[in-house]
Amino acid sequence: MVYLTRHEHFNAAHKLSNPNWTKEKNVEVFGKCANENWHGHNYDLMITVKGKVDPDTGFVMDVKKLSELITDHVTEKLDHKNLNMDVPFLKDKFPSTENVAIAIWEQLSPHLPKNVKLHCVKLYETPRIGVEYFGGE
Amino acid sequence: MVYLTRHEHFNAAHKLSNPNWTKEKNVEVFGKCANENWHGHNYDLMITVKGKVDPDTGFVMDVKKLSELITDHVTEKLDHKNLNMDVPFLKDKFPSTENVAIAIWEQLSPHLPKNVKLHCVKLYETPRIGVEYFGGE
Amino acid sequence: MVYLTRHEHFNAAHKLSNPNWTKEKNVEVFGKCANENWHGHNYDLMITVKGKVDPDTGFVMDVKKLSELITDHVTEKLDHKNLNMDVPFLKDKFPSTENVAIAIWEQLSPHLPKNVKLHCVKLYETPRIGVEYFGGE
Amino acid sequence: MVYLTRHEHFNAAHKLSNPNWTKEKNVEVFGKCANENWHGHNYDLMITVKGKVDPDTGFVMDVKKLSELITDHVTEKLDHKNLNMDVPFLKDKFPSTENVAIAIWEQLSPHLPKNVKLHCVKLYETPRIGVEYFGGE
Amino acid sequence: MVYLTRHEHFNAAHKLSNPNWTKEKNVEVFGKCANENWHGHNYDLMITVKGKVDPDTGFVMDVKKLSELITDHVTEKLDHKNLNMDVPFLKDKFPSTENVAIAIWEQLSPHLPKNVKLHCVKLYETPRIGVEYFGGE
Amino acid sequence: MVYLTRHEHFNAAHKLSNPNWTKEKNVEVFGKCANENWHGHNYDLMITVKGKVDPDTGFVMDVKKLSELITDHVTEKLDHKNLNMDVPFLKDKFPSTENVAIAIWEQLSPHLPKNVKLHCVKLYETPRIGVEYFGGE
Repeated sequence: MVYLTRHEHFNAAHKLSNPNWTKEKNVEVFGKCANENWHGHNYDLMITVKGKVDPDTGFVMDVKKLSELITDHVTEKLDHKNLNMDVPFLKDKFPSTENVAIAIWEQLSPHLPKNVKLHCVKLYETPRIGVEYFGGE
Repeated sequence: MVYLTRHEHFNAAHKLSNPNWTKEKNVEVFGKCANENWHGHNYDLMITVKGKVDPDTGFVMDVKKLSELITDHVTEKLDHKNLNMDVPFLKDKFPSTENVAIAIWEQLSPHLPKNVKLHCVKLYETPRIGVEYFGGE
Repeated sequence: MVYLTRHEHFNAAHKLSNPNWTKEKNVEVFGKCANENWHGHNYDLMITVKGKVDPDTGFVMDVKKLSELITDHVTEKLDHKNLNMDVPFLKDKFPSTENVAIAIWEQLSPHLPKNVKLHCVKLYETPRIGVEYFGGE
Repeated sequence: MVYLTRHEHFNAAHKLSNPNWTKEKNVEVFGKCANENWHGHNYDLMITVKGKVDPDTGFVMDVKKLSELITDHVTEKLDHKNLNMDVPFLKDKFPSTENVAIAIWEQLSPHLPKNVKLHCVKLYETPRIGVEYFGGE
Repeated sequence: MVYLTRHEHFNAAHKLSNPNWTKEKNVEVFGKCANENWHGHNYDLMITVKGKVDPDTGFVMDVKKLSELITDHVTEKLDHKNLNMDVPFLKDKFPSTENVAIAIWEQLSPHLPKNVKLHCVKLYETPRIGVEYFGGE
Repeated sequence: MVYLTRHEHFNAAHKLSNPNWTKEKNVEVFGKCANENWHGHNYDLMITVKGKVDPDTGFVMDVKKLSELITDHVTEKLDHKNLNMDVPFLKDKFPSTENVAIAIWEQLSPHLPKNVKLHCVKLYETPRIGVEYFGGE
């Protein structure tokens, strides 16, 4: 079993604001992240798949194909978008880094080739804040 | 003469959209950056000052003081903000990286101690796109 | 279960020198790291916690709170300090990167909120040398 | 149990080309990586070992010794080499990143001191493409 | 005047070997870089142009257009190539980092829009070795 | 004229403390950097030389030779040292980043080959604080 990781990135706007809370409560909990007029990030995304090495290619899977799948199913839909407003697969989801990572897993997982498994979605919102999701309930 | 550089950063939303143009023209020129619902970046800001070394401190200037000046006059006003809507010193300015760098120069320059000069404002919008402004007309 | 990581850093002096050994033995085992007059590092610290995502906030835990806990209980006590002399929680501990990482785990773990668990303390002494500790006996 | 990681690097040429396939099939599967006249990379290699902390030294193992073992058994044999032609331990192996990582594991593992175990070979071919191998069949 | 920089990269093979010298002399002068069977690098390329800010766009020039020009005239011709054998614009040039940087200047400069000037070609062969060329004899 | 840069690094302890001042004044001016028991850094050093390209080698100068000169005359004398106590060429100099950069210039400049000139000493004390010195009075 070998693990293969591909780094991608996207730039997006978002805000953290619970629609069931007052403006004051949102500012109290989310601080500057609750700014009504949005803020944004350069997100770094690292997708790790695991599988056996194909003896003909030496690959777990073709990393160019992996990059295309991430682009088509994930980053093309997130790049230069507003995560609260523009992204069908985030509709009715609160765009914290945690929730975006889980949604990326669900979005990408069904499209991977049969011989590999999605192992980890790692999403950095800033160079100092990141989350990892390994699937599971 | 020694040059001293301090790295800071801020996270903000913006869009590129010329108010004198049609929506179509804006999309034609600015592409994904014209998304009406905004996008955003982690901006990296590097401020360089130049001056003589003070024999008592060994400093061109106290880098902690430089950091405070950048925070107070620049990053505090930009961080977690919408560059098109929320920033008084960018009012009526089009928030391209170039224009934001020039505005940061004008914002910071008057507040530096007498014995140093602002040499360069370097602003990276993504790890692969950056501008430098050295003042002057 | 989602894993949340926060990067912090501190700058400190130390030396590697076993008090039960002769100076010669220390130099033989620790080389330049045994320099009597100390040397130092910019340490990079990555703290990972794990937990369930809170449906109200979208957070495993508030990363700003996590940063404050790391600052109060760990980096404030280590930054610009001598790890052999100045740090109560390292008293009588030999400040190898391994031992500092274990001590940081013990220092931080009791202060985390009930709904998360400390998963990993990752400590880099230079960009090319790092250790990870996941708890356990 | 503590995990210790050492970062090393080497610069090498290679091409991806299955000798049992036609030139056309190789270009179809490997694209630009099949260029007959080679291409190359700065490879980043991270070796992680795990073990108990020695109470006399505070070390899982001496990281300088680990670096020497990696240099002697791995990077000295790969640096400024052609991975398809020049490396005895890659003979008859197809030099995909996956296969090189597995071969490094086999090359390094027998030379480590008894009190540690090789935990992970992480090999990045570019800053955006990397593999991890943890041993096992 | 504002300076705009775009980062690009390419992966290539090369060797350093003066065709007028004996094999022994080449090894004496170029060491491991003279390996007959090639070695390679991930090259990092930073192109800086300078110009006035267009009041309609806020741009020195469209960075997407700059990226396309670099791709078409430079990196597309270098990526996954052998710098000694495969690149028409390096024919009969010795592919040291210095000479490749100068050749990139000559290759890119005529294709830039009239309102900007090429300011600097910065080329890193490894993260620790780079050259800068500012044009001129 | 081409500019060639080599990155090196060293790890050292220091403190900022003017011997002509009281302890209180030193703490007031230098804050945590005045800690009597020292602190330390991983310093990043970038040395840039400029010269014409030698037509026989394609080099401004052999970067391996440049690295050896930096090692012999600079980093070997600074690495794992106390900058206030252990370094002959810093004797009676106050080890601010500015002063260390100037001293490195004076230390390295006479040893460079005749056909190149030292252009810049760039010294980063942390990833966010750096100085540049270009010589001159």
